[in-house]
Amino acid sequence: MTVLDLNCDVAEGFGAWRIADDDALLTVVTGANIACGFHAGDPSAMRRACVGAVRHGVAIGAHVGYRDLAGFGRRFLDVDPAELTDDVLYQLGALAAFATAAGGRIGYVKPHGALYGAIGSNDGQAGAVVEAVRQFDPSLPVLGMPGSRWLAQAAAAGLPTVPEAFADRAYLPDGRLVPRRSPGAVLTDPAAVASRVVRLVTAGEVEAADGSVLPMHARSVCVHGDTPGAVQLARAARAALVGAGAAVRSFV
Amino acid sequence: MTVLDLNCDVAEGFGAWRIADDDALLTVVTGANIACGFHAGDPSAMRRACVGAVRHGVAIGAHVGYRDLAGFGRRFLDVDPAELTDDVLYQLGALAAFATAAGGRIGYVKPHGALYGAIGSNDGQAGAVVEAVRQFDPSLPVLGMPGSRWLAQAAAAGLPTVPEAFADRAYLPDGRLVPRRSPGAVLTDPAAVASRVVRLVTAGEVEAADGSVLPMHARSVCVHGDTPGAVQLARAARAALVGAGAAVRSFV
Amino acid sequence: MTVLDLNCDVAEGFGAWRIADDDALLTVVTGANIACGFHAGDPSAMRRACVGAVRHGVAIGAHVGYRDLAGFGRRFLDVDPAELTDDVLYQLGALAAFATAAGGRIGYVKPHGALYGAIGSNDGQAGAVVEAVRQFDPSLPVLGMPGSRWLAQAAAAGLPTVPEAFADRAYLPDGRLVPRRSPGAVLTDPAAVASRVVRLVTAGEVEAADGSVLPMHARSVCVHGDTPGAVQLARAARAALVGAGAAVRSFV
Amino acid sequence: MTVLDLNCDVAEGFGAWRIADDDALLTVVTGANIACGFHAGDPSAMRRACVGAVRHGVAIGAHVGYRDLAGFGRRFLDVDPAELTDDVLYQLGALAAFATAAGGRIGYVKPHGALYGAIGSNDGQAGAVVEAVRQFDPSLPVLGMPGSRWLAQAAAAGLPTVPEAFADRAYLPDGRLVPRRSPGAVLTDPAAVASRVVRLVTAGEVEAADGSVLPMHARSVCVHGDTPGAVQLARAARAALVGAGAAVRSFV
Repeated sequence: MTVLDLNCDVAEGFGAWRIADDDALLTVVTGANIACGFHAGDPSAMRRACVGAVRHGVAIGAHVGYRDLAGFGRRFLDVDPAELTDDVLYQLGALAAFATAAGGRIGYVKPHGALYGAIGSNDGQAGAVVEAVRQFDPSLPVLGMPGSRWLAQAAAAGLPTVPEAFADRAYLPDGRLVPRRSPGAVLTDPAAVASRVVRLVTAGEVEAADGSVLPMHARSVCVHGDTPGAVQLARAARAALVGAGAAVRSFV
Repeated sequence: MTVLDLNCDVAEGFGAWRIADDDALLTVVTGANIACGFHAGDPSAMRRACVGAVRHGVAIGAHVGYRDLAGFGRRFLDVDPAELTDDVLYQLGALAAFATAAGGRIGYVKPHGALYGAIGSNDGQAGAVVEAVRQFDPSLPVLGMPGSRWLAQAAAAGLPTVPEAFADRAYLPDGRLVPRRSPGAVLTDPAAVASRVVRLVTAGEVEAADGSVLPMHARSVCVHGDTPGAVQLARAARAALVGAGAAVRSFV
Repeated sequence: MTVLDLNCDVAEGFGAWRIADDDALLTVVTGANIACGFHAGDPSAMRRACVGAVRHGVAIGAHVGYRDLAGFGRRFLDVDPAELTDDVLYQLGALAAFATAAGGRIGYVKPHGALYGAIGSNDGQAGAVVEAVRQFDPSLPVLGMPGSRWLAQAAAAGLPTVPEAFADRAYLPDGRLVPRRSPGAVLTDPAAVASRVVRLVTAGEVEAADGSVLPMHARSVCVHGDTPGAVQLARAARAALVGAGAAVRSFV
Repeated sequence: MTVLDLNCDVAEGFGAWRIADDDALLTVVTGANIACGFHAGDPSAMRRACVGAVRHGVAIGAHVGYRDLAGFGRRFLDVDPAELTDDVLYQLGALAAFATAAGGRIGYVKPHGALYGAIGSNDGQAGAVVEAVRQFDPSLPVLGMPGSRWLAQAAAAGLPTVPEAFADRAYLPDGRLVPRRSPGAVLTDPAAVASRVVRLVTAGEVEAADGSVLPMHARSVCVHGDTPGAVQLARAARAALVGAGAAVRSFV
C-alpha cells in the first residue's frame, strides 16, 4: 500500500499579520512546515503551530528560509554558505525550543520559498543547509524536490531524504515548478488537485504545464495554505489520496 | 574562600558591525553573555562566541533581549508577557543550537539592557522571562540584580539564582544602576574598577554614586565589553579579584 | 453646517501580508492615514495607497509609528526624543516621495498606535514628533486626541491642529481610549457606530464605556480598517454623518 | 584642468554600531554617499551625515541599497524591479528630508554594494533604480561604473551620469571590481592608492589585478571609509589628485 505524507506551510504570519487558517489546516495534513522567523513566523505563531501540531498528531517540520520578511523569503538572496549554515541552524534551534515546550520535537526540515528553489541547483547553498541540519541532528529527514542538488547532497551526508510532489503547483517539463508569478503557476481548482494526486498515486507521474508527463516518485505531497480555499484544497487532496488507495501518514 | 564569576557581554555585533574584542575578552572572563539576535548577535557571531567560549572554558550565558536592533535593546519595550515569554524562548533555542554545535551548552541566562532593567521591578515581564527559562530548562541558573523582582520570581519558580555586582557601572543609593545616559554612569578607570571589586570581596559592599554604602552579596561580577579599554578593565577586575583573595570561577 | 473629516488607516500590510481592503476604504473616507514602513507599510503598499488616495481625492496622512514591525507599533517603545524626531522625519520624507510621485502631497500627520497613545501624555515624545513635523513642513496640520499633550505642543509650535473622535473605539470616562486588549474596546456594530457619530455631530459629545458623557469637539472622525466588516462600518459612519447634517470633507 | 570629485561612503553605522570616522572623512571628500537605512544608516546617522556634509560643503549623495541590514547590502537580492523602484524611492525620500532639514539637498545618487554590482549588468534592476531616480528628480546626477548598464540606462532616461573610478579596489581585466572576498580586493597601502589616482589623472587609465591596463575616463574617484586607515587613505588620494594637477571638486 502506498504511504504518503501530506505537508503544508503554517505559521506564515508575523505579528499582527496572518496568512492562512492554520487551525483548520492542522486537522487535514500530516506534516506542518512551520516558519521559523526569518521569512515569516514570529515566536508566538511558532508556539501556536507547535502546540496545534502536537495536539493533532501532525509532524513538526522546520520551514527554514532566507532572512527576508519584506520578501516573504521568496527572493533569492546570495548568502555566503557559511553564513547560511548559521542562519539555518539558528532557525532550527529556535523552533526546537517551541517543539519541545509543546511536548513534541522537530520531525523534518523543509526549506522555504526562494531557498527551496535555489538549493535545487545551487551547490554552495544546498551544502550549507545540509551542513546545518547535520550539525543540528544528523538523523533528521529532509524534504525536497526529486532530483535536486539539495536531496543529493543531503543523501551524501547521510541524512534521510523524502522527495515530494506539489499538489497545487504547475510543473515545467524539466521537473521544476512554474515560477510563482507566471500565470497558472498555482492550481486552485480542487478537482484538478484531486486528479493530480490520484495520478501520482496510481501511475507515479504528474503532467507538466505543457502536457508532457513527468515520472514522480514522491513520499510526500505538498499543498499550500496561503491560497483562497486552501483548506478545501487540502481536504480535496487528502480525500483523493485516500480514494486512490494511499495511506496518508507522516514519514516521521 | 570567596568564589566569584566574572561575566561579560559578547557577540554584540550584527552583520558587518562589531562592538568589542570578543576573542580577547574570552581569555579573561568566566562567563560570556552571548547576544541572541534580537538586540544584537547575528547567527555567525553567536557561533563564533560559542566556539570561543568552549575553547576557553568559559560558561555560555544566554543574553536575551527585546527585539530592537535599532535601539540595541536599550529601550524599554512594552511587550505583552505572553509574547515576551515566546521571544525569550525563541532566543534560548537559537543559542542552544550553537552551544551544542560548539560542544557546549547554555550555562545560564542573563537578560540584556532595558529588559534587564525592566524586570527589576516589572512583575509581568519578570514573570514572562522566568516562564521562558522554566519551559526551556528549569535547572538553568539566572543572573540578575540582588533584590530584583526577576531574581525573586525566578527563585519562587525554583530556578537557581545568581546575584551579580557591576564592576564598571555607578550605583544609585537605592541599589539600581545610574542610567546609562547620565554622566558618570560607566566607570572607565581600571583603578576605580579594581578598588570596587576589592571592596566587594573583602567587605561585601559597594559605594553608590552619592557616597552611600550598599551591602552587596554577589556571586558574579559584570564588566562591559563595549567601552574603550574594555579588555584592560576586565583584566584589572580579574587581577583585583584574585589579589583580594577570591577564586574567579564560574558558578556553572 | 458642521464639516467633518473621516479618516482611516491604510497601507497596513507589509510584503506578502495584508490587513484591510484599502481600495474599498478609499472610496468612503476623506483622509487616509498611510503607514510609513516602521510599524507597517512597505514601500509598494505606500505607493499603492498614495495613488489610490490621489485618484479618489482623499487627503494623504502620514501615519508615523514606532520602529516595531513585530508589534505593529502597538507597544510603547521608550525612544529617546532626539531619535524619535529623526525616526519620524525619516518616515515623513519617505512618504512624501510617494505622495509626490502620485501627483499629491502629504496633507496631515497622525501618529499611529502606541505612539499616538504615548504622546497624549509623554511630553518628551510629544515634543519630538512636533519637532519632526515642524522641521518637515511647519504648515502641516496634525491630527490627535482633544486635550492631548501632542495637540497642545503642536499648537504651541504653530502647527495647525485637528482634534478627532473615534467612531469605533470605546472611551474611558477621562477621555482616553479603552485599551485595545480590554473587552469592548472596539465597536463592531454599525448601528452603534452610526448612533455615536450622530450624537457627536448633533450634541458634540460621546458616551464613555461607563455611561458618562464626554464633550467632544472633533473636526475629524476616525474609523478603523482592520476590523471585520470595516468597510461597512466606514460606510455606516459616513452615512450617519451625512444623515445628521454634516458635510464629510477633509480639512486639508 | 582635470576636475575630479572624491566620494566616500558615510553613515554606515546603525543604532549603537559605527563603521567609519565620518567626521574626519567629511573634511577630506567632496561627495558623501549617505546610507539610507536599508543596508545601514539609521535616521540619526543620516541626519548627522547631512549636517556634517552641509557644514563642510560636501555634496550629499543618496547611497541606496538592498533591504538587508544583516548583509550590509553586500548580497545580491533578487528584488522584483517594480518593488526595487519603490524601495529606492522610499530611501530617496527619507534622505531628502534630512538633507532639507540640514539646509542642503540630495546632489546625486549612487547605489551601494551588491545593488551597485548587480545593476552593472542586470537590466531589470538597473532600469528599476533609474525609474526611481527619474520619479524623484529627473535632473539628479547618478554615479556608477563606466560601461555599466546602469549608466547606459540612466543616460537613455535623460539623467546626468558620472562615471567613477575606485582608488582602493582592485580591478578585473574586464573592468569590473575584484569581488570583495577575494584576496587583494581592497588596497590599503596609501602609496598604491596615490599612484593609482595619479595614473588615472595623467594617463586616464588604471592597472587591473593581472597587470593589464584599462582606459578609465572617470569624473569621480571613490575611496572607502570602512577600512583600517581609511582617513589616511582618503587624504593620500586627495593629495595625489592635487599633486597630479587635478582640481578636487564635486560635479554637483
